[in-house]
Amino acid sequence: MSSFVVALDVGGTSMKGGVVTHSGEIAFTERRDTPRERGPAAVVESIRSFIDDLAVAGGGDPAGVGLAVPGLVTPNRALYSANIGWRDVKAEDFVPLDVPVMLGHDVRTGGLGESVLGAGREVSDFLFIPIGTGIAGAIVLHGEPYGGSVGWGGEIGHIPVFPDGEPCACGQVGCLETYASASAIGRRYSARSGSHATSKQVAELIASGDPVANAVWDDAVEALSLALTTYTLLLDPETIVLGGGLAEAGDLLAVPLAERLRKRLAFRAAPPLRKAALGVNAGMLGAALLGWRAAGWPEAGTAWSLDVLKSPPVA
Amino acid sequence: MSSFVVALDVGGTSMKGGVVTHSGEIAFTERRDTPRERGPAAVVESIRSFIDDLAVAGGGDPAGVGLAVPGLVTPNRALYSANIGWRDVKAEDFVPLDVPVMLGHDVRTGGLGESVLGAGREVSDFLFIPIGTGIAGAIVLHGEPYGGSVGWGGEIGHIPVFPDGEPCACGQVGCLETYASASAIGRRYSARSGSHATSKQVAELIASGDPVANAVWDDAVEALSLALTTYTLLLDPETIVLGGGLAEAGDLLAVPLAERLRKRLAFRAAPPLRKAALGVNAGMLGAALLGWRAAGWPEAGTAWSLDVLKSPPVA
Repeated sequence: MSSFVVALDVGGTSMKGGVVTHSGEIAFTERRDTPRERGPAAVVESIRSFIDDLAVAGGGDPAGVGLAVPGLVTPNRALYSANIGWRDVKAEDFVPLDVPVMLGHDVRTGGLGESVLGAGREVSDFLFIPIGTGIAGAIVLHGEPYGGSVGWGGEIGHIPVFPDGEPCACGQVGCLETYASASAIGRRYSARSGSHATSKQVAELIASGDPVANAVWDDAVEALSLALTTYTLLLDPETIVLGGGLAEAGDLLAVPLAERLRKRLAFRAAPPLRKAALGVNAGMLGAALLGWRAAGWPEAGTAWSLDVLKSPPVA
Repeated sequence: MSSFVVALDVGGTSMKGGVVTHSGEIAFTERRDTPRERGPAAVVESIRSFIDDLAVAGGGDPAGVGLAVPGLVTPNRALYSANIGWRDVKAEDFVPLDVPVMLGHDVRTGGLGESVLGAGREVSDFLFIPIGTGIAGAIVLHGEPYGGSVGWGGEIGHIPVFPDGEPCACGQVGCLETYASASAIGRRYSARSGSHATSKQVAELIASGDPVANAVWDDAVEALSLALTTYTLLLDPETIVLGGGLAEAGDLLAVPLAERLRKRLAFRAAPPLRKAALGVNAGMLGAALLGWRAAGWPEAGTAWSLDVLKSPPVA
């Protein structure tokens, strides 16, 4: 068996590829644009050539290939993605080599990475919630991500936290995402202040006492505290792992969020909040685990050193 | 092996006991009061003598005993119940006979009953939500109830559906239960109208055009639709099984609830709502399945005829 797998995390904007060895070393990584504007067939074609190039970088045929893709997905088929536009693509159609392949849902594959290698390593039941342009969740139960009866689960970004709140781009009302995603924070600040700002800039403005920045941030924290209160009461997680760009705000987010979660919960303790450990590599590393599973090694990662975390980030 | 098990569903007010045969027939049932006011030791003692009497009714030693109890519970220990007051009671301490025994959480054991024998028989992933004096949920995944990392999961009655809403008896604010339980409907109608009514009477008053009854019912439906929207987005269930006293309201509840759930969900279909099939026997029948599992028959119930549903209800 080859000593490495090829792993690919396919997003709507970019793809992160990696060569991950049997001992969990990230031997090579690369980022490429996703040619979404050229249609689903072009995306599949660019995935194929990316995998080919990663195999060459690894030094030959990999033991397996793992892919994290958006939308509705089974281990063998990418059934549907509104974002990319494909319908029912077989796993083998992504791979130009004769090696085993396994697909996973993008957010849940990131959750698998955090479960086996990252912030969820010591626990078996937790929520991984990456907060970036959008918000979704990986519900990890008994160590494995759970996607629901069909695979549409984990849509914590669209639960109605404020029932009579603002309309969301998804067509619903009062969704978490419309208050607390990084883009929502930037958008809401810009709309109220009249001057453009990113969520990172909003976070910086808070230090200077900007009242609009404070109000917008406060709404985001309140919305997140409601969503995490609900999640905690329903699913009793051991911990909640905050990921994505907004988790980089550190204490500015985590401290008030933990405090409100504690206050909202009256008859049970709040689970601790942790910061995701794998950063932008979560999906790629989760895909590497899928690649090793495809190759017939289901325990991949459990004995890997956390030194994997010291590997250089994707460019 | 004996041809029957003894099953007991222990509630804060009453206990439902049954003798359930190898073929799924309810050979005998009885209901007794739970002597909660005399303390936890008296409750354990009354459970022991109830089991003894049920064994006699069955004609000797049962193959196993299954118990559904409230609070925090493992298959071998009743760890804690605020309602009954016990702490860490071993499963064997409930049983005066030398036969295998298995414990389960009350609501989740009802969910197991509905999963194997009732409205969840044809599906593997669903929510069982009994709506009575209180509201709790059994989250059934892959056919089995999931209780969370420790066992505090399923508290859908206390998720904050209206973040700035009315205070709940639990100490939180805007909980589903404080708007939509049968007792909440009666309490809120009585508070607004000045005349006492049960939830059943409130349901009857709607037919006569009573505006207060309509408003209170509408709040309950709205609160439930928000909770079920959230559940659907998070856990993508195949169906939602409505149980408890309020499900007896039939279309008066189910029709507007299904309509609002459909309206709240913009980018995915709503799961169908079903009425629970086992009624007040759900917990006792689930406990019978636990009793058969304790006796070494994990597949108990899967081949039982649904004729079990035609058995007489508990007195």
